[in-house]
Amino acid sequence: MCRWLAYSGTPILLESILYRPVHSLIDQSLHSRLGVETTNGDGFGVGWFGSHKDTPAVVRDIGPAWSNRNLREIAGHVRSPLFFAHIRASTGSAVQQTNCHPFRHGKWMWMHNGAIAEFHRLRRHLVLAVDPELFPSMEGSTDSELMFYLALTFGLAEDPPGAVAQMAGLVERSGREHGVEFPLQMTVAVTDGQRLWAFRYSSERHSRSLFYSTRVETLRSLHPDVAFLNEISDETRLIVSEPLGDLPGAWNEVPEGMYGVVQPGTDVLLPFAPRAA
Amino acid sequence: MCRWLAYSGTPILLESILYRPVHSLIDQSLHSRLGVETTNGDGFGVGWFGSHKDTPAVVRDIGPAWSNRNLREIAGHVRSPLFFAHIRASTGSAVQQTNCHPFRHGKWMWMHNGAIAEFHRLRRHLVLAVDPELFPSMEGSTDSELMFYLALTFGLAEDPPGAVAQMAGLVERSGREHGVEFPLQMTVAVTDGQRLWAFRYSSERHSRSLFYSTRVETLRSLHPDVAFLNEISDETRLIVSEPLGDLPGAWNEVPEGMYGVVQPGTDVLLPFAPRAA
Amino acid sequence: MCRWLAYSGTPILLESILYRPVHSLIDQSLHSRLGVETTNGDGFGVGWFGSHKDTPAVVRDIGPAWSNRNLREIAGHVRSPLFFAHIRASTGSAVQQTNCHPFRHGKWMWMHNGAIAEFHRLRRHLVLAVDPELFPSMEGSTDSELMFYLALTFGLAEDPPGAVAQMAGLVERSGREHGVEFPLQMTVAVTDGQRLWAFRYSSERHSRSLFYSTRVETLRSLHPDVAFLNEISDETRLIVSEPLGDLPGAWNEVPEGMYGVVQPGTDVLLPFAPRAA
Amino acid sequence: MCRWLAYSGTPILLESILYRPVHSLIDQSLHSRLGVETTNGDGFGVGWFGSHKDTPAVVRDIGPAWSNRNLREIAGHVRSPLFFAHIRASTGSAVQQTNCHPFRHGKWMWMHNGAIAEFHRLRRHLVLAVDPELFPSMEGSTDSELMFYLALTFGLAEDPPGAVAQMAGLVERSGREHGVEFPLQMTVAVTDGQRLWAFRYSSERHSRSLFYSTRVETLRSLHPDVAFLNEISDETRLIVSEPLGDLPGAWNEVPEGMYGVVQPGTDVLLPFAPRAA
Repeated sequence: MCRWLAYSGTPILLESILYRPVHSLIDQSLHSRLGVETTNGDGFGVGWFGSHKDTPAVVRDIGPAWSNRNLREIAGHVRSPLFFAHIRASTGSAVQQTNCHPFRHGKWMWMHNGAIAEFHRLRRHLVLAVDPELFPSMEGSTDSELMFYLALTFGLAEDPPGAVAQMAGLVERSGREHGVEFPLQMTVAVTDGQRLWAFRYSSERHSRSLFYSTRVETLRSLHPDVAFLNEISDETRLIVSEPLGDLPGAWNEVPEGMYGVVQPGTDVLLPFAPRAA
Repeated sequence: MCRWLAYSGTPILLESILYRPVHSLIDQSLHSRLGVETTNGDGFGVGWFGSHKDTPAVVRDIGPAWSNRNLREIAGHVRSPLFFAHIRASTGSAVQQTNCHPFRHGKWMWMHNGAIAEFHRLRRHLVLAVDPELFPSMEGSTDSELMFYLALTFGLAEDPPGAVAQMAGLVERSGREHGVEFPLQMTVAVTDGQRLWAFRYSSERHSRSLFYSTRVETLRSLHPDVAFLNEISDETRLIVSEPLGDLPGAWNEVPEGMYGVVQPGTDVLLPFAPRAA
Repeated sequence: MCRWLAYSGTPILLESILYRPVHSLIDQSLHSRLGVETTNGDGFGVGWFGSHKDTPAVVRDIGPAWSNRNLREIAGHVRSPLFFAHIRASTGSAVQQTNCHPFRHGKWMWMHNGAIAEFHRLRRHLVLAVDPELFPSMEGSTDSELMFYLALTFGLAEDPPGAVAQMAGLVERSGREHGVEFPLQMTVAVTDGQRLWAFRYSSERHSRSLFYSTRVETLRSLHPDVAFLNEISDETRLIVSEPLGDLPGAWNEVPEGMYGVVQPGTDVLLPFAPRAA
Repeated sequence: MCRWLAYSGTPILLESILYRPVHSLIDQSLHSRLGVETTNGDGFGVGWFGSHKDTPAVVRDIGPAWSNRNLREIAGHVRSPLFFAHIRASTGSAVQQTNCHPFRHGKWMWMHNGAIAEFHRLRRHLVLAVDPELFPSMEGSTDSELMFYLALTFGLAEDPPGAVAQMAGLVERSGREHGVEFPLQMTVAVTDGQRLWAFRYSSERHSRSLFYSTRVETLRSLHPDVAFLNEISDETRLIVSEPLGDLPGAWNEVPEGMYGVVQPGTDVLLPFAPRAA
């Protein structure tokens, strides 16, 4: 499995989130507390929106994040109002750049922690469901990238929650047809550069961990002495596989079978259920 | 495109063929004379049969061969009676280990120079033709690997020339259906550890270069002073994308639309034509 | 040897210089015209100053630049008013990140094309001349990095041309003491984020190629139709190992044994000579 | 720190030792029990003597061993009577091939777990003590490689224990002169292809773990049902950073401040002490 984080808010140096917290994503690459594996050393990626571009930059590499000097350099010099970061623990598919998250298609970015159970048996069936126009853009061999292209096929650009629901529905139906009891296990983040959706779902209703940060206003009143909270806007939000530290009141679990939308104005948390594709 | 060589004969240190000749494959990685590109620096691979194993070892990496120290070490210490080596110049697909040749399935090894024209348009159709049982074993995104799995689908293990002919037939039919004038350009080597088949074919009848070495007995009489020729058996044979040196009489072009079989006893050269799959 | 470029001027996406010109640095990585080698595929680096930081970011990797997707991503999303880029052709030292240019120390960045002749014989003597305080910061095994640390030892921070002259003087004296006729061959660029110095020198007075771009005002009057020239300030300047294209009047050779200073106000071109250290 | 193993005995596929044991070195790369770090993912190396060569092959790479397919291939196809394997956890120096163990000089191979304390302060002084003739052969930036070249300087080829003792003596003296209380922490293996020496020592007399395997004859009588023990000769011996499994009676700790010699005839275990260089 993997660990990831998504940031939306005040433009900030990536290192402020990736390296500085006590239990940062880089620390999690060596010492994950809540993940299936302790070590997430099979590649990493970071994707960020800048101020001048419609499409995000995506930098991915195949070694461990903890020793990658280029990631350290980028994180120390790039500011972004919206970025994804992901560290990978392969469950068998090749350690290669095209299997690293986040995945990008146009302005859309996607990352995932989880798995399609018995993916080797279901893969062909699911690949066939991808829009033939999109098919040539798939470059890797992961379930995660395929889930992204299925969601794109089902209209991610128009209705992200609906498209993800249809993707999940197809995976579950395909799984059941192949005799797989619990086909889907996922925490997914997806963005178009304006809004950010994060999903927590699994067929067995026992999903991988997912947390969102408390509203900044609330945190400021709880912790008036934490300087960082005064540097970020009220709209700033983090979604993470596991908390980046132990600040009381800072982290809230995304409930089982829910998804959140981080957006201008009020963020929302809504129920998620797979839907027939 | 790419450059490759296949060796069959007296067990020999890989470096004798990979590094020592004047215009060795390593030299070709920087200065190819007959290839479409001068530089072949987008990954490499070597696969060899040992004395104790039924399946070949395959070592592949993503950097240039010319600076790879591990390849140099292996070539200097491993002996083999049958090995493949390949240097890659990507025409667009990702530079990753799973896109490097040779490809292996069980005891079968495959490598390729050439391309399926407009592969991004034909790929989905061809992928669907792969035996669903074999589908999960494909890991990369190249036309070369897909051609291998199509040949396996069409019975490579029973009738290699027939299976390759059916693969070529399917590619050409699929190409024509998509309006591609010359769908296939290929020089392919394939082996099961006992025999070695090498194909030269292209839809436009203007195929990439391919050469085979002259019979060792003949070469010895031509060049009684070349010590190397006394160290190798009469049965030793090389198939190469381009000659490894300028020894007069040493290299013969595989004619357009032909394939050769290197095997115990007399080697043969036969006509090749695609066949309806 | 290698190829490099240095840009100073209007903040610009790196790709405008690294990828878009006809004979861009990326093109030079495969098809250098004026270099000692045609192929520069043994690693690359890019270093840039941003708007918020005193020290430059430096991203380096060991494969060829032409196929590196992360370099493409960074170049397409990062703007900078002052950046270096370098592609490497190793003359023997290991292909590893710590041997890739540019090198950085504090706010100083350094890159080099050329060589210290018979470096393996002179290296120990030169290493001993590095300030013991600076010694632990050297990480690689190249002559280029060592030249940087010698220049730092000789006061690069106070007087860049003087420090480079002393470094060159030491190399030449050390070379002569070891019986090396022409010890130094160099084109060097160095910057502190405010000014940029570029040196062309060799012991044999036959130095590697080095060019600087014509004043933007002059180019605009010569080529009123070249849109790019209207997007950059009068102060914009490029120093390159070889011209990025064939625009008449755009490129001027740095004369043998000279150095240039790109700075606020008038740039200057001055004679360079090694000096006793 | 790191983990390593050294094998001497019946020629065997490397995978028999590297992959098959319950707590193999590959398992240790993710889940070390006795090491300072749980994860050893900053590069690896394997060096082996073959039947035809005087010098060992050394294959090293910068990613984690656990996901490296080339290591898996080599281990599955190469047999050797004497090989080293090492997995690295960097304590700061660059993750690069030239910093991976084992190191080789001629027929000599060296690997190390431990550290020279405050190496950045002692390094220059120690580097100066390396024989100027050997100096150019050092390629990396680790304390481990430098210790090897110091031992070579002090006559490793003639008297391995004496040379290692002088190296340790120099490190301790240099450390004390720089105010370092416990300068040296080491478990070292070194071989010339005929004999194998393994040292356990630390200035604080609290050294990293090191074990040797029990005599095969004894193990056979203890475990008559373990088939593997009947496939290897009486002379077969393993030295390891931590036991590869839980077979009762199989592993013995190398005592503090001792070294062992694995050689034709009776192996020996002797006291080790640093000596004035």
